[in-house]
Amino acid sequence: MGSENPSGADNQQERLFTSGWLVGFVDGEGCFSCPVFRNRSTTLGWQVQPTFAVVQGASSADVLEEMVSFFGCGTVSVNRRHDNHREDLHRYKVTRLGDLRDVIIPFFHANPLRTAKRENFAKFVEIVDLMNLRRHLTVPGLIEIAEITQTMTFRKSSEVLRILRDHTPTLFPVSGEEDDMARTLRRRREVDGDVNPPLRM
Amino acid sequence: MGSENPSGADNQQERLFTSGWLVGFVDGEGCFSCPVFRNRSTTLGWQVQPTFAVVQGASSADVLEEMVSFFGCGTVSVNRRHDNHREDLHRYKVTRLGDLRDVIIPFFHANPLRTAKRENFAKFVEIVDLMNLRRHLTVPGLIEIAEITQTMTFRKSSEVLRILRDHTPTLFPVSGEEDDMARTLRRRREVDGDVNPPLRM
Repeated sequence: MGSENPSGADNQQERLFTSGWLVGFVDGEGCFSCPVFRNRSTTLGWQVQPTFAVVQGASSADVLEEMVSFFGCGTVSVNRRHDNHREDLHRYKVTRLGDLRDVIIPFFHANPLRTAKRENFAKFVEIVDLMNLRRHLTVPGLIEIAEITQTMTFRKSSEVLRILRDHTPTLFPVSGEEDDMARTLRRRREVDGDVNPPLRM
Repeated sequence: MGSENPSGADNQQERLFTSGWLVGFVDGEGCFSCPVFRNRSTTLGWQVQPTFAVVQGASSADVLEEMVSFFGCGTVSVNRRHDNHREDLHRYKVTRLGDLRDVIIPFFHANPLRTAKRENFAKFVEIVDLMNLRRHLTVPGLIEIAEITQTMTFRKSSEVLRILRDHTPTLFPVSGEEDDMARTLRRRREVDGDVNPPLRM
């Protein structure tokens, strides 16, 4: 079996084992989150940032560098705060929408998570799909995304959700279609002369 | 390749992937520890308990049951305390020396951990090796084990180490050979008429 090309077969076996390792490691230590935070420079004044991350102490930082090589995307940063930790924390992180869509999500579709983290991952995929449809640039889409994040394990969007729910009906047709949304935004721009008007609250 | 027996090849691939998954998951969530605690019914009054464990919330308890199947050893217990947790905690645990020696340790020798946890594992193996030589039944062996646990990530043996270091020179030849140790224990038994004399402190 594979005698003509043992190194190819070995590589294939190694890649299979490493794929298993990565899924197990992410089942243990990985985090699919989607913070939604204020950023006045964005169309609606809020930024949606789906993030795949794995944190390790400095002594295990090697495996994070190996993730950069394996996936061919993402970066490792160091958090030098020592509060409650005996060593620096290193963080592998992928935030580029194209990398999440074309590399990370297909990998975990092909190699499914085995813990309850797979449910968080499914919601993460929903959000990335909505962003690919540019729905996060509309208020109904932003609300839809913020509502999904509320059901994720790492939710940090209660503020945006509360503010959008409380204040947008007077600004935007929340239940409207995307076309209504676009028209409303255009009208606001014409009235305000503001190219990227943040929501005012 | 494997065309005569595709299901066999598939099983082999599946096992390879699952082995990788287990190593990754244990790199993330596993714990090789060795508590040393008082147990007056043991030869020296202290019990050494090497333990391989993985804890998960109830929603991911399935994977722990899969570990029982995969390794063919260990048990899953439930911790119903809810302090700081939103769900019950389930714990896969292997404590039988024979299972650790014949199943768990060989698996992680064949499929090495990739994070700094491998150093903890190496110390765990040292302890299990010493116990297989029945060194934990001697005071020098017990001290040696307690000293190893002091360098492990999960150390809980400072009490036994302090007490043994402070009190045993008058009871036992701490720096002596095992034969001296055995002779001393035998002498103590003859004097005390106590078959399993605990250390008195």
